[in-house]
Amino acid sequence: MTTSADPTRSPRKDTVRNRAALVEAARAAFTAQGLDAPLERIAAAAGLGNATLYRHFPTRANLWEAVLLEPLREVRDLVEDCLRRAETDPWDGFSSFARGTARIEARRAGYSELMTTRYDGAPELLRVRAEIQRGVESLFRQASEAGAIRSDAVLEDFALVQISTAAVIRTFGDVAPAVHQRWVDLILDGFRAPDAARDELGAPALRPNQIWRAVMRRHER
Amino acid sequence: MTTSADPTRSPRKDTVRNRAALVEAARAAFTAQGLDAPLERIAAAAGLGNATLYRHFPTRANLWEAVLLEPLREVRDLVEDCLRRAETDPWDGFSSFARGTARIEARRAGYSELMTTRYDGAPELLRVRAEIQRGVESLFRQASEAGAIRSDAVLEDFALVQISTAAVIRTFGDVAPAVHQRWVDLILDGFRAPDAARDELGAPALRPNQIWRAVMRRHER
Repeated sequence: MTTSADPTRSPRKDTVRNRAALVEAARAAFTAQGLDAPLERIAAAAGLGNATLYRHFPTRANLWEAVLLEPLREVRDLVEDCLRRAETDPWDGFSSFARGTARIEARRAGYSELMTTRYDGAPELLRVRAEIQRGVESLFRQASEAGAIRSDAVLEDFALVQISTAAVIRTFGDVAPAVHQRWVDLILDGFRAPDAARDELGAPALRPNQIWRAVMRRHER
Repeated sequence: MTTSADPTRSPRKDTVRNRAALVEAARAAFTAQGLDAPLERIAAAAGLGNATLYRHFPTRANLWEAVLLEPLREVRDLVEDCLRRAETDPWDGFSSFARGTARIEARRAGYSELMTTRYDGAPELLRVRAEIQRGVESLFRQASEAGAIRSDAVLEDFALVQISTAAVIRTFGDVAPAVHQRWVDLILDGFRAPDAARDELGAPALRPNQIWRAVMRRHER
């Protein structure tokens, strides 16, 4: 049993530990319940009271920034890498972004929400996301102007790619962790200009028993 | 207020009315909560007791048959129509099935589950579904053997099309009811053999404000 006389505890150490526990609980809650998860439950999951939560994070936006800045920056870094690739090959830049976001989505549940939340009161998140959006627009435009993307596809079609990829990962992610690579490659070939060469698909197809397991698991939930 | 002396009521009429109310409540419950929706709630939603439900439908499988045979037959009829089209143009047969199932999914929520439930104890549903599966295999094989489908795509990839299309309809169905036609056409072009000619996309792209509305609605849920 620890008491306030315990030499390993100090008010400062408690502060650091509490903050880390709150961030971890918020990360879990945002992933499981979405970015509007109740703050009271986050405090309770961290084993702390609401007052402690509000002392560390006076607004929900502060908590968002503590949890989401790192994954958003990861996407921003991906975009910057893809923009460099686009300088020599615009299709490589655009398609690397599509494949890279699918990999991030497969690793971090809830990435789609990361890009579509309003983030009122979280200026740093808004700034990084605006960088991402400008980058994606540029990747699409460059590949389109180079004639690598079919002329009747528009940037807004990319929203369908992201929604569909998230669903494929949700349904088949644990029985076939790589299948999103195959899926994104199949879609990308639908976006290519009609006369463009194709790459090999990035992963093997689902096996019938994997489809069956994914479906059965859904019924068990 | 009606009583048992009401001349418009008779035991027979009550039976017919009760059965219809149970089927309607089951249809709503299966759509909203899935095919494993609790039977007690279905009875309650119909304004009836469990005993009445069990008199009409001794097993869950009986209730499934009453609700699901018609939509499954609709898919079976689509497959038969597509098999006739495939006789003159195998790609037309396969692609008409992809487009047709998306249209049915858009009109009837829960169609994907219709095709993936075990249906223990519901032999008629199993029989119709086996017909559908044989037909879909034949449509894919014919288009593949005719060289219209890329040589590295397999039937199992079609599961990804159905999962992704269901997600697009769930997310954008009410702000952009036709967008699944565009989506299926984009995917189908990913499945085509590389040198095949393309059709025009079946619907206009999402507008930015439609994406925004779909996303905001999700946060309001």
